[in-house]
Amino acid sequence: MLTELFGEFLGTAILILLGNGVVANVNLKNTIGNSSGWIVITTGWALAVFTAVFMTAGLSGAHLNPAVTIGLAAASQFAWIKVLPFILAQIAGAMFGALMVYLFYIDHFKITTAPGMKRACFCTAPAIANTKSNFFSEAIGTFVLVLGVLLITVPEFQLEGMNSTKVGLGSLGAMPVALVVFVIGLSLGGTTGYAINPARDLGPRIVHALLPLNAKDDNGWKYAWVPVMGPVAGCFLAAFTHMLIVYLLR
Amino acid sequence: MLTELFGEFLGTAILILLGNGVVANVNLKNTIGNSSGWIVITTGWALAVFTAVFMTAGLSGAHLNPAVTIGLAAASQFAWIKVLPFILAQIAGAMFGALMVYLFYIDHFKITTAPGMKRACFCTAPAIANTKSNFFSEAIGTFVLVLGVLLITVPEFQLEGMNSTKVGLGSLGAMPVALVVFVIGLSLGGTTGYAINPARDLGPRIVHALLPLNAKDDNGWKYAWVPVMGPVAGCFLAAFTHMLIVYLLR
Amino acid sequence: MLTELFGEFLGTAILILLGNGVVANVNLKNTIGNSSGWIVITTGWALAVFTAVFMTAGLSGAHLNPAVTIGLAAASQFAWIKVLPFILAQIAGAMFGALMVYLFYIDHFKITTAPGMKRACFCTAPAIANTKSNFFSEAIGTFVLVLGVLLITVPEFQLEGMNSTKVGLGSLGAMPVALVVFVIGLSLGGTTGYAINPARDLGPRIVHALLPLNAKDDNGWKYAWVPVMGPVAGCFLAAFTHMLIVYLLR
Amino acid sequence: MLTELFGEFLGTAILILLGNGVVANVNLKNTIGNSSGWIVITTGWALAVFTAVFMTAGLSGAHLNPAVTIGLAAASQFAWIKVLPFILAQIAGAMFGALMVYLFYIDHFKITTAPGMKRACFCTAPAIANTKSNFFSEAIGTFVLVLGVLLITVPEFQLEGMNSTKVGLGSLGAMPVALVVFVIGLSLGGTTGYAINPARDLGPRIVHALLPLNAKDDNGWKYAWVPVMGPVAGCFLAAFTHMLIVYLLR
Repeated sequence: MLTELFGEFLGTAILILLGNGVVANVNLKNTIGNSSGWIVITTGWALAVFTAVFMTAGLSGAHLNPAVTIGLAAASQFAWIKVLPFILAQIAGAMFGALMVYLFYIDHFKITTAPGMKRACFCTAPAIANTKSNFFSEAIGTFVLVLGVLLITVPEFQLEGMNSTKVGLGSLGAMPVALVVFVIGLSLGGTTGYAINPARDLGPRIVHALLPLNAKDDNGWKYAWVPVMGPVAGCFLAAFTHMLIVYLLR
Repeated sequence: MLTELFGEFLGTAILILLGNGVVANVNLKNTIGNSSGWIVITTGWALAVFTAVFMTAGLSGAHLNPAVTIGLAAASQFAWIKVLPFILAQIAGAMFGALMVYLFYIDHFKITTAPGMKRACFCTAPAIANTKSNFFSEAIGTFVLVLGVLLITVPEFQLEGMNSTKVGLGSLGAMPVALVVFVIGLSLGGTTGYAINPARDLGPRIVHALLPLNAKDDNGWKYAWVPVMGPVAGCFLAAFTHMLIVYLLR
Repeated sequence: MLTELFGEFLGTAILILLGNGVVANVNLKNTIGNSSGWIVITTGWALAVFTAVFMTAGLSGAHLNPAVTIGLAAASQFAWIKVLPFILAQIAGAMFGALMVYLFYIDHFKITTAPGMKRACFCTAPAIANTKSNFFSEAIGTFVLVLGVLLITVPEFQLEGMNSTKVGLGSLGAMPVALVVFVIGLSLGGTTGYAINPARDLGPRIVHALLPLNAKDDNGWKYAWVPVMGPVAGCFLAAFTHMLIVYLLR
Repeated sequence: MLTELFGEFLGTAILILLGNGVVANVNLKNTIGNSSGWIVITTGWALAVFTAVFMTAGLSGAHLNPAVTIGLAAASQFAWIKVLPFILAQIAGAMFGALMVYLFYIDHFKITTAPGMKRACFCTAPAIANTKSNFFSEAIGTFVLVLGVLLITVPEFQLEGMNSTKVGLGSLGAMPVALVVFVIGLSLGGTTGYAINPARDLGPRIVHALLPLNAKDDNGWKYAWVPVMGPVAGCFLAAFTHMLIVYLLR
């Protein structure tokens, strides 16, 4: 269990280091990748998932996302008793990763004046604030992600990957999930910035609240529940769809 | 059969949600991916195919395209009796997916004033209207796609993928088809926007006609037959080439 | 033999249709992918190689390039007697592919006024004309490509791919060569536009000379020998390196 | 041993030819890929790693980086006695590769006036000079890289890849490492330009000092130790983490 929790902590930390790292590289002033666009951000996040899953699948199955953990439990692929510890490890890992991004890009944080640009290196914000459609966006994006993860566990879709200790296809087994996250970013990231992971959004948001940034934006607490509860709704929808598919295949 | 039709419905819905979703993200006002370019659109569509095929290959073989279904039937790889039901499920799935894109990006549809930008999130239109060369474009693009799909079924090209319930290479088996769609977009998408799939164009076009968009473009019914019949012509050409190749290999 | 020649013809035609197609999409006026940049062109060419190799490896081994054919012969992996017929089939296929690109983008060729933009959809031209360094560029680029192809045939590098009828890793076996072409474009394409294939350059150049384009550029015959002889020099260098590696591994 | 040293020399030369080559294509005047952006540079470097590893893994295991060699030794996966010869072969290969980039792009070096643009085709420089955070950047980036390489050697993560003569998954075995380098560039390349390899930075820097470039920048010797010692620190951190993971998995 300690090994699993360490895996979730390390994996989520790497996920946020690389995922929020690419946002920092694109958003912050005077970085080498400044203003390099949406293709850079979405490729970076996809490969952040690939790298974090590949590096920790052997330890914990690499959920790295409360919506994945809850979705697997709801689909009877994971014990409910382990859900809360996993989520706490994920949030702690996400906070550590966010701190690392801050230390990594500290000189660039210091000279960036736009508060929103800095906050975007921690947590998401909607392009157009509208609770109902923002919630819908996060739920649908997470639905696609968690359905992908769940289907990898169905024998007809060849058992391999995330929730087994053996990553199928060797270290390329993390690829399908990374590609699904890639397309979620490209296609469904336009409204809320695709948190699709409560730990990924909440952990760094707490770090943003705690850090002594100059010209800091508000922490967006009013919006903070959307990228937490939207993904939870989405993962239950995915678990239901998964059960329907398994039923149809019998 | 119900399982197969559900697979085609779900797969085509996911295909359009992610495929038309990336167009919405690039085209609509104030999205986070606004104006992020052709590489974003073509990558998004390629991974939409990857995700949709990977998620439904185990259910129905993941045709997700009447041109693929007809092409497989013409090449004696699929029963003609199932062709019409498959196509109807695909069109229904495409309509549902288009509705989801609308709901997902609804706040951005509301503030986008250019009618053509909104219609492009549903169906294709030619860069230069010319029936003969537009038809040729859609036929050739679909020829490349369907030939790729058919060759995956030839043992000499290693049997795996779309029309078997087992997706070869685990969940990466959907990759070759996704890469072929990627290059069709990059190289052959410049004239008509590569519908290469009658359901992908017709279903969302019907939804565009029905939805209460403000400042709506005409539905382009005059052009609508080209991305339906062009792909059908292309898939027969692919089936013929496939038969020639199988004959040569004997 | 007929099967093999058909494979080379079809494969090179598909290679040029998709490879020169992406140049047309980026260069010609009013295309949907207009001015979408170097990443689009290099991704398109890489996937053109992937698609063409994957579609014809089962027929002929998918050389699709006289430099590959000569390199394989020089490394004793291919019979010298078949070299000339293969090259002729490749040039014929490249000419047919170039004609298809012209027909595909005909409306856009008509309205594009810059002669160089149109010629670039057929054959390459150096950014800075300098016979010595242009020749060096084409030789080095081809060296990297052909060394990659030859190493796939060495058991220590796992036998799979191009010159066997069975494409390893199923249809993803064409991937390594496509990725090598991708990086050649990104890294070594900046000087001469990486022809790295005599048929790819000469065949379409002949078609450019024959077609009735308005406001046509000269056919660049003075330069035409460089992307023919540079690649030939490069493939011999690769064959020599391959032999050295095989010797060292004994 | 000679075979191994030849492998390291050849592999690092190819790595630098393709890696620094893409920087030259983007930075130098009048190149075809001029100003094509960060996505081109990071894709080019990732595929430079893929190509170099794939071409030399069968000869030497393709470390191509003193930080990898030291990290493998520190993790007891490589004999300390071979470390120094490997590093010398890597530096020599990097110098040869840098010379090839110069000869390849010589006409473009001649007409590029900005000294920093030319030096960037050889070695890295920080966006904001700050020894402490630059060192931290190089250490963290290298930590991610070397941890990835080390985990490929753990059975639970499926043994394949770099430090065995057999590259798993055929020639796609070089892929995971290339993808990790890709995301390091996208996400962690924004501060110091991700040298993450002492040979990659020091070798070409020496060549820059020796070459008769017009309007040459200083050689940045004051900064030169950071991309050497930062990666060394990072690789020890990775070796420690690797040992912790192996301990936890027992």
